[in-house]
Amino acid sequence: MKITVLTLFPEYFDGFLNTSIISRAREAGLFEFEALDFRPFTEQKHGHVDDSPYGGGAGMVLMCQPLLDALESVRTKDSTVILLSPQGTTFRQETARELALKDHLIFICGHYEGFDERIRRHADIQLSLGDFVLTGGEPAAQVMCDAILRLLPGTIRDESSGGDSFSDGLLEYPQYTRPYDYKGETVPDILLSGHHENIRRWRRQESLRRTRSLRPDLLETADLSESDVKFLESLAEEDGK
Amino acid sequence: MKITVLTLFPEYFDGFLNTSIISRAREAGLFEFEALDFRPFTEQKHGHVDDSPYGGGAGMVLMCQPLLDALESVRTKDSTVILLSPQGTTFRQETARELALKDHLIFICGHYEGFDERIRRHADIQLSLGDFVLTGGEPAAQVMCDAILRLLPGTIRDESSGGDSFSDGLLEYPQYTRPYDYKGETVPDILLSGHHENIRRWRRQESLRRTRSLRPDLLETADLSESDVKFLESLAEEDGK
Repeated sequence: MKITVLTLFPEYFDGFLNTSIISRAREAGLFEFEALDFRPFTEQKHGHVDDSPYGGGAGMVLMCQPLLDALESVRTKDSTVILLSPQGTTFRQETARELALKDHLIFICGHYEGFDERIRRHADIQLSLGDFVLTGGEPAAQVMCDAILRLLPGTIRDESSGGDSFSDGLLEYPQYTRPYDYKGETVPDILLSGHHENIRRWRRQESLRRTRSLRPDLLETADLSESDVKFLESLAEEDGK
Repeated sequence: MKITVLTLFPEYFDGFLNTSIISRAREAGLFEFEALDFRPFTEQKHGHVDDSPYGGGAGMVLMCQPLLDALESVRTKDSTVILLSPQGTTFRQETARELALKDHLIFICGHYEGFDERIRRHADIQLSLGDFVLTGGEPAAQVMCDAILRLLPGTIRDESSGGDSFSDGLLEYPQYTRPYDYKGETVPDILLSGHHENIRRWRRQESLRRTRSLRPDLLETADLSESDVKFLESLAEEDGK
């Protein structure tokens, strides 16, 4: 996979690229990454890439020409162009899974006030990270890249990605490690029982209990077995008492 | 404001801190930032900070001791401790606004599989960035810091933060800048009319139109005037025809 980020701040991605799992995956050749500064593409004097908005108002708006010329310089028929915008579809694990299958992702990062509306229609998809405002698209692009690259075969050990929250549509069960007693707080005894089937059932039930309590909306789309449904019903009965 | 991030990868934040608006705000003394590596706090040999999970399973779990000792070394009565976890409350613009008023934010970044459950109760709040899985808490912490720091007085010009998406509960209206004609696509003529009141009304209506089309859920909590409601009703009538 190749990722190109169109940005005014290519150095923003240094920390991300040089850290831990992502750094190792890049060194292993699992993906290529290019942060492309679109300022040099401008035809304006003094390297300007933005201008004041038509109709007045504060702030500056990114112009079409530098950004779109930079886009055309890297876009191929295998590219998927992603515009980061609060108006986009909210990014979710499912989005990460779909994008992890693509050959070439191009992220367009706006900055300051926003960008000329005519830029929008050059994107294949518009994505939003959530209902909040950032100084630019860079932090959002970085998060999406992290979620996507993590799913490439070889980035993390396969067995490590299975039990995470959201991977089966539920929140994760509680995890414990040594010591057994930390300042008076101990590990649930079932986890020391050595009885694999009981441990598996306990973890599943804790996952269901948590999801029901903290994110009941997730249960509507989670992949539930008959015994899961039975357990959830027993929780509902307990509540009713 | 002071921000402390507890992380195994303090260098992750270099790009963020050295870029644009955030870099200028830090140089201007608007906030202090410390990325604190909690690995040196461990009492384990070889600098280990994680161990295998009780009850079996793949992956490693962050231990209580190094992380909690690091936390106690920086926590004061003015600290708000934020644990990044998929099980937390979803981060929104409102969360950013509340956290921007605090004196000292401490972000706890997990990594790999997750952390010992007993760490959780040492946090004041648990936050999630969204329904997706990351390699660690660092990208999420960075996004939240960006959204929060942006709101500190002086970080960006005051007049620039007002018209953004979500700041009034609606998506932003379309923006245009020069040239008037870009490869055959022109700017809506109303924006060149010079008639401020008409421009204001057009922008508000485009904001409402977009929000209704892309994020109707936002209209339930947006601050709407009588004429906003009237305009939305007229759109509903058009649909009905």
